[in-house]
Amino acid sequence: MRAVAVPDMTDLRPGEVGVDLPGGYDAGLYFIGRIRTPWARREDCPRRGAPDGPVCRLEIDPRWAQALEGVSDAPRLQVLYWMDRARRDLVLQSPKRDGATRGTFSIRSPVRPNPIASSVVELVGVEGLVVSVRGLDCVDGTPLLDLKPEYCAFAPEVP
Amino acid sequence: MRAVAVPDMTDLRPGEVGVDLPGGYDAGLYFIGRIRTPWARREDCPRRGAPDGPVCRLEIDPRWAQALEGVSDAPRLQVLYWMDRARRDLVLQSPKRDGATRGTFSIRSPVRPNPIASSVVELVGVEGLVVSVRGLDCVDGTPLLDLKPEYCAFAPEVP
Repeated sequence: MRAVAVPDMTDLRPGEVGVDLPGGYDAGLYFIGRIRTPWARREDCPRRGAPDGPVCRLEIDPRWAQALEGVSDAPRLQVLYWMDRARRDLVLQSPKRDGATRGTFSIRSPVRPNPIASSVVELVGVEGLVVSVRGLDCVDGTPLLDLKPEYCAFAPEVP
Repeated sequence: MRAVAVPDMTDLRPGEVGVDLPGGYDAGLYFIGRIRTPWARREDCPRRGAPDGPVCRLEIDPRWAQALEGVSDAPRLQVLYWMDRARRDLVLQSPKRDGATRGTFSIRSPVRPNPIASSVVELVGVEGLVVSVRGLDCVDGTPLLDLKPEYCAFAPEVP
């Protein structure tokens, strides 16, 4: 694993509340690849991905190559990834630094006990171990956890 | 942690392919609570949750109580949970036992490298540490990973 920035757990904004994290983990994750995006720094990322945003690449570890069979048939994918730079101990947070706090489970901030992000993306194509998509908003190099076809309950009929 | 059924990693259906799992995990998860549903066994669960399905309860660990502030304002939530009974090594699988195999990332089967399930649910209400919702399909006692407001790209305007 490459080195990542370690969040400073003592740096709270006004009104924010952190808790002691549990003493151990309950389950483990495998990073199945990396996400390549145009955004090198977190502050460069768009606030939310757009279906007409730039093409990003999901680079899949060779171990999982066969699991990509059939992915090219899905017009939309759900992508799960790991926000490895986010602290995990905040229960009340102030993303806008405006003194107003929100419960962590009431917002989609990356700061949460399990910083798993979920995005729905448009498939551009699959070539070897690379899945190209539009609609992501994460920093370049973000660890990939999963991809699966998306069936949004409110989506128009897919032909 | 309570005991769970350990999947048999050698039992492959015709055409299925498993791979050696990585030697270690890349990140760890905290179970933030449990999901209570009417379905005691996996074979009793509906194939997919429905917005008019039975009310299920997300029971949140007291550690995270303050993170629930504001959750009651969200008409729809995304719930992430851990399919702790699913094997993780299959890249080609045959969920219908019909000899036809599919790449793991081309379907939403719980069997995948990181068995994280994602469901969009309708909020019924929040009372103390319990969030009641409709739209889940998992077995009673499933470990909860996260909840956050859902903004589906194709949803009708929420008043």
